[in-house]
Amino acid sequence: MISWNRRSVLQGIGAVLASTALLDGAQAQSVPKRKIGYAVVGLGGYATGQIMPQFKNCEHARLVALVSGTPEKLERYGAEYGIPKTHRYSYAEYDRIRDNPDIDVVYVVLPNAMHAEYAIRASQAGKHVMCEKPMATTAAEAEAMIAAAKKAGRKLMIGYRCHFEQHNRRAIELVKTGFVGRPTLITAEHGFFAQGGQWRLDKRMSGGGSLMDIGIYSLNAARYLSGEEPVELVATEWTDRSDPRFKNVEDRIDFQLKFPSGLIANCVSSYSSNHNGFRASGTKGWVGLEPATSYEGHKMWTNHEGKTEQVTLPVPRKNQFVGQLDHLCESILTGIPLRASGEEGLRDMRLIEAIYRSARERRAVSVA
Amino acid sequence: MISWNRRSVLQGIGAVLASTALLDGAQAQSVPKRKIGYAVVGLGGYATGQIMPQFKNCEHARLVALVSGTPEKLERYGAEYGIPKTHRYSYAEYDRIRDNPDIDVVYVVLPNAMHAEYAIRASQAGKHVMCEKPMATTAAEAEAMIAAAKKAGRKLMIGYRCHFEQHNRRAIELVKTGFVGRPTLITAEHGFFAQGGQWRLDKRMSGGGSLMDIGIYSLNAARYLSGEEPVELVATEWTDRSDPRFKNVEDRIDFQLKFPSGLIANCVSSYSSNHNGFRASGTKGWVGLEPATSYEGHKMWTNHEGKTEQVTLPVPRKNQFVGQLDHLCESILTGIPLRASGEEGLRDMRLIEAIYRSARERRAVSVA
Repeated sequence: MISWNRRSVLQGIGAVLASTALLDGAQAQSVPKRKIGYAVVGLGGYATGQIMPQFKNCEHARLVALVSGTPEKLERYGAEYGIPKTHRYSYAEYDRIRDNPDIDVVYVVLPNAMHAEYAIRASQAGKHVMCEKPMATTAAEAEAMIAAAKKAGRKLMIGYRCHFEQHNRRAIELVKTGFVGRPTLITAEHGFFAQGGQWRLDKRMSGGGSLMDIGIYSLNAARYLSGEEPVELVATEWTDRSDPRFKNVEDRIDFQLKFPSGLIANCVSSYSSNHNGFRASGTKGWVGLEPATSYEGHKMWTNHEGKTEQVTLPVPRKNQFVGQLDHLCESILTGIPLRASGEEGLRDMRLIEAIYRSARERRAVSVA
Repeated sequence: MISWNRRSVLQGIGAVLASTALLDGAQAQSVPKRKIGYAVVGLGGYATGQIMPQFKNCEHARLVALVSGTPEKLERYGAEYGIPKTHRYSYAEYDRIRDNPDIDVVYVVLPNAMHAEYAIRASQAGKHVMCEKPMATTAAEAEAMIAAAKKAGRKLMIGYRCHFEQHNRRAIELVKTGFVGRPTLITAEHGFFAQGGQWRLDKRMSGGGSLMDIGIYSLNAARYLSGEEPVELVATEWTDRSDPRFKNVEDRIDFQLKFPSGLIANCVSSYSSNHNGFRASGTKGWVGLEPATSYEGHKMWTNHEGKTEQVTLPVPRKNQFVGQLDHLCESILTGIPLRASGEEGLRDMRLIEAIYRSARERRAVSVA
């Protein structure tokens, strides 16, 4: 195991560090000091366990309001985070966020099928929107969300936290700066064992199965690692419909993406096995992470001209959650372009629809 | 990293050790001491660099004859291995092996398209045959080879050396004994950068591209790890036909296999990226090797109930090459069934044809 700083084989180190400086907020001195207020909509496990505890580490973001259908949750988390009763909303009261000037951003952390409605109503209330991925259940919904934000003159960002995670960003830069040579094959696997009874297994709530939920990480990683947009894809679904969990969503779906350069990505999405990793291979070597898109504990390996090494990165100033929350604030405060815009989310939605179409029609689908 | 002997989580250790005892020749006391004489046909890099140096470590096999079209090679390797001039043959003299009682086995290490002819002629000469994989370029050829060996009453074994490699065998046993729970997904990647000008890129000599050459390791591993035979498969080929290397053989071909239990294997075969690994994942964990099917340097990892560990195995008494060479001898001497028979090779050939058909016709193919 070597530390990042001692690496000698790295090409383009300047570019890597330059881009990471921005990530770590080194340019924050030029950002106005006003804190941006977030309302979190939907107090499930991800919101309460991962996102809300991170506001205290943010430079620009603060938690100012909560929206939930469960009074006990509003009471509990309102007390825990010091959110006054005036800033706690039921879904019936949701549109009243319009009248609360403390709320700049609405963070939608609801089941997928509710994303479009709650994001659009937030835009209509004059608020910026952060929305969890997948941004919607269809590309049409995603387009409506983008249109609503545009009409309101407000930001729409999608919660692609990996875009702010340092191991993922290093991997992107290593591919971009030629460390692996010409990239030729990306493998990306994501999966976990889905437990029965969850909303994710109800298509009306989720819009789909493992692909919508966890396979989207394989898809998005293939795109950000390659820096290209696919032109063709082939997908195969493997679902045991006699399994009560999979009455109306898919279990496994494997898909291959072809990129303009000739690069191929072979992606796994599964509700019946644990996976969390990717590797970008090229003419000179590869870079891989496992776990790659987890909340924490990322591990990175590189192979360059035959030599494989585990790479340890220094602890970043901001973790992926903080980086994501602050980034939208910086975009609001300074006008810098969003790294994970609604358009980025829409690209995944269109590809997800194409993947489902390919699997359904059992043929390659052009997505150029 | 832990040593194998200290593992406590392992299930079925008895079965693992019992099966490995055979591999290590612990039952060799019951094998007659007569050494079996091999003629190696084709003195290319694999024969001269990997196989021939291993005879000195064999318990039952010895190198007694050489066949080559290059007089300089016969002279050089004949001298190096102490093979008298009477036991060196040109291809024109090949059928004269019939009259050499020192030759028990003919090991065919020729380009794929020559396997069937030279194996069948060896059978007709009354010799046992070891043949490199892929055993032929078509299933029909493979069937003819099996028929010829059967008619001659002689053995036909295919050079699946991984069946004799201890990390691979441990992985098989771990899957078989429930260490990973119910297996749900196997990923297997094999590839290397094919250099122009080699016979492997000439379909008349190779019968096909990366699948015939290196992807067969992904295919065979999926079968031996699962212990099942696939019932359905889907394949997608990705070849840049403007690349002069790929005028008539494929570059990349990805294929997915569905097994009767519902297990899926997602396999990569590539002439444009380096890969050598597989992983079998199930409901309780996984076992993976990387490199998995190399000549040496195998590394093994296991994951059981959330804990990932690198596993070090003791150095075996016989490496995979020696194990393979001696196994055929033991089968000849004692009548034990072959672990890698012609029928085993034929199964791969039929699947390879189905993979090509699926890629060509762009549809799932039933192989039940």
